[in-house]
Amino acid sequence: MATHKLLLLPGDGIGPEVAAEVEKLVAWFTRSGIAAFETERDLVGGAAYDAHGVAISEDAMKNAKAADAVLFGAVGGPKWADVPYEHRPEAGLLRLRKDLGLFANLRPAICYGALADASSLKRELVEDLDILIVRELTGGVYFGEPKEIVTLEDGQKRAVDTQLYTTGEIERIARVAFDLARKRSNKVSSAEKHNVMKSGVLWKQVVTAVHGAEFSDVALEHVLADNCAMQLVRNPRQYDVIVCDNLFGDILSDVAAMLTGSLGMLPSASLGAEDPATGKRKALYEPVHGSAPDIAGQSRANPLAMIGSFAMSLRYSFGLIEAADMLEGAITDALANGARTGDIAPAGTNSLSTTEMGDAILREL
Amino acid sequence: MATHKLLLLPGDGIGPEVAAEVEKLVAWFTRSGIAAFETERDLVGGAAYDAHGVAISEDAMKNAKAADAVLFGAVGGPKWADVPYEHRPEAGLLRLRKDLGLFANLRPAICYGALADASSLKRELVEDLDILIVRELTGGVYFGEPKEIVTLEDGQKRAVDTQLYTTGEIERIARVAFDLARKRSNKVSSAEKHNVMKSGVLWKQVVTAVHGAEFSDVALEHVLADNCAMQLVRNPRQYDVIVCDNLFGDILSDVAAMLTGSLGMLPSASLGAEDPATGKRKALYEPVHGSAPDIAGQSRANPLAMIGSFAMSLRYSFGLIEAADMLEGAITDALANGARTGDIAPAGTNSLSTTEMGDAILREL
Ligand SMILES: CC(C)[C@H](C(=O)O)[C@@H](O)C(=O)O
Ligand SMILES: CC(C)[C@H](C(=O)O)[C@@H](O)C(=O)O
Repeated sequence: MATHKLLLLPGDGIGPEVAAEVEKLVAWFTRSGIAAFETERDLVGGAAYDAHGVAISEDAMKNAKAADAVLFGAVGGPKWADVPYEHRPEAGLLRLRKDLGLFANLRPAICYGALADASSLKRELVEDLDILIVRELTGGVYFGEPKEIVTLEDGQKRAVDTQLYTTGEIERIARVAFDLARKRSNKVSSAEKHNVMKSGVLWKQVVTAVHGAEFSDVALEHVLADNCAMQLVRNPRQYDVIVCDNLFGDILSDVAAMLTGSLGMLPSASLGAEDPATGKRKALYEPVHGSAPDIAGQSRANPLAMIGSFAMSLRYSFGLIEAADMLEGAITDALANGARTGDIAPAGTNSLSTTEMGDAILREL
Repeated sequence: MATHKLLLLPGDGIGPEVAAEVEKLVAWFTRSGIAAFETERDLVGGAAYDAHGVAISEDAMKNAKAADAVLFGAVGGPKWADVPYEHRPEAGLLRLRKDLGLFANLRPAICYGALADASSLKRELVEDLDILIVRELTGGVYFGEPKEIVTLEDGQKRAVDTQLYTTGEIERIARVAFDLARKRSNKVSSAEKHNVMKSGVLWKQVVTAVHGAEFSDVALEHVLADNCAMQLVRNPRQYDVIVCDNLFGDILSDVAAMLTGSLGMLPSASLGAEDPATGKRKALYEPVHGSAPDIAGQSRANPLAMIGSFAMSLRYSFGLIEAADMLEGAITDALANGARTGDIAPAGTNSLSTTEMGDAILREL
């Protein structure tokens, strides 16, 4: 049995707490002979800054490149509000995304029946919701140059960020979206602002061309990003796969996340291109939620987003489809059996701690 | 009595239909001796393109500059999908915003008690919601240069948009937001992405400085734009005034709009700087909704967003505060008395046409 190399980067805040629950599962899968993992750990974010003065060390980057998959917790917190910009906790995550070439960020937003009442939206609008946001993750305004603040002659400052996209960058993310749609409900909604942005004009053109040439069996619609945000609130079930750029994906996936009842539930996968020689791709898996400094250290965090991210790694990095199904099934079953951390428990009811929720998942396996 | 110069730019789709209802009100206010208006009309958007080959003629621009206020309907539609980029219908609106210097876009999102059940969100989350989004409207990625698509040596294309903000641009929109907050619940939430964008770093710095120097009596919080979008769905009533850049404002205001039950309800004001000599400011008023080509020409559109925009012009351009209160009161009363266009009528109930809704407002005056 092949040994899968996992790098665990728990990060800051609740990151280490939710990562610990995944470690229990890694041990369980190894013990039960389903898969063999070799796990390393390293620092990222504020934790790395405190230890090494940078948001991620060169050593940790080397480990990340050598790993079959990175499991990432969360970074940031008020403690690091004043560190220099290039060393802020988020810089560790952005460097991992960029240097590992993780251009495809998959963010499923699934509303579990057992949790539909926890959503802000009316139950009938979100019941059985199953959307996948495919966000471009290594381009756009996140990385384009110039990106700077300059002081002008009159003493004013001017800040510049640059939104950049090439044909190739759009083609490859479009292919990922169409490919995934074929395994789902066969529909892609491409969101941009072609009425205002030239990157939106190119985005729409290239997605249309890729669709016509390679995926004309998939339904395609174009939607303005502002309208898409609104439609996600109005009638989210009209969507199957939404494909968009880095910045729109950041916002639209947070809106989609909130529809499901709790951000504490949402996993994500960030994938690189397949290496034609080995068939392997670099990958990082992380919960959509942040480091939640307000509840850190109290065992109150919901570990399901992190556990769901581990399930995505089984599916997308290790080809362990049955194990992924099993773990996702355990999440569904635990919820159906009433397991709730505080974020998803109805007000006034008892809730599980982070470790108890991890144990509840183990029991369902 | 001073005569107020109004320029009406109905535009495309449902624009002319909702504008016609405002014309009835203009006539009513004039007839009843409350105010005197001199109304001109001109073309914008697709209608201007069909007549003159441009999205707005130089003549119409001259009229707009001479007017005390512009009332704008909506632009665009599938008919103009293939016109050259610089002549697309939206270009007329963007030129008006830019050339009139309308840097402050005010977008109130109010949930009328009578309509709380039309919201996607649970009633208890949106009842009595009253948010004001203050969006910077003449800067950012909408207007920054370079903004182009270039063909590279290998035949690939590369699209560039440029997000630009200066200290001065941020200061003046921050002042508008703080000023308005003082007349409301005295709280400003400033949304940006300082963790990723240099414009976000400058935005946060400048807003903080303006606050400390001139508005320390107003509560200020900073929120990441993605988190803000999520919080708008989770618990919108935590907000009073939200201030943000052009692109985030575009998206956040659409999310906020949807919370209120119908986009057909939402007015907006776009204001320029006060002329120190005359005390006047350029201004344009428009509904947040678009041209809705699917229902154009059927007298099904809800004219309340356009009528509410006219009410905002009474308040912000003409100092007719009582008339504005009266008109806004008429909207509230008409809704309380059951007046509903199709977009806000419960399924299976009768609804009013566009003109009938205009008449219902007249009756309440
Ligand atoms: C932490 C931050 C840099 C990040 C982003 O903006 O991409 C986060 O919001 C996300 O969505 O993963
Ligand atoms: C029509 C379009 C150019 C416009 C914008 O993006 O600003 C619209 O979405 C708005 O919000 O007023």
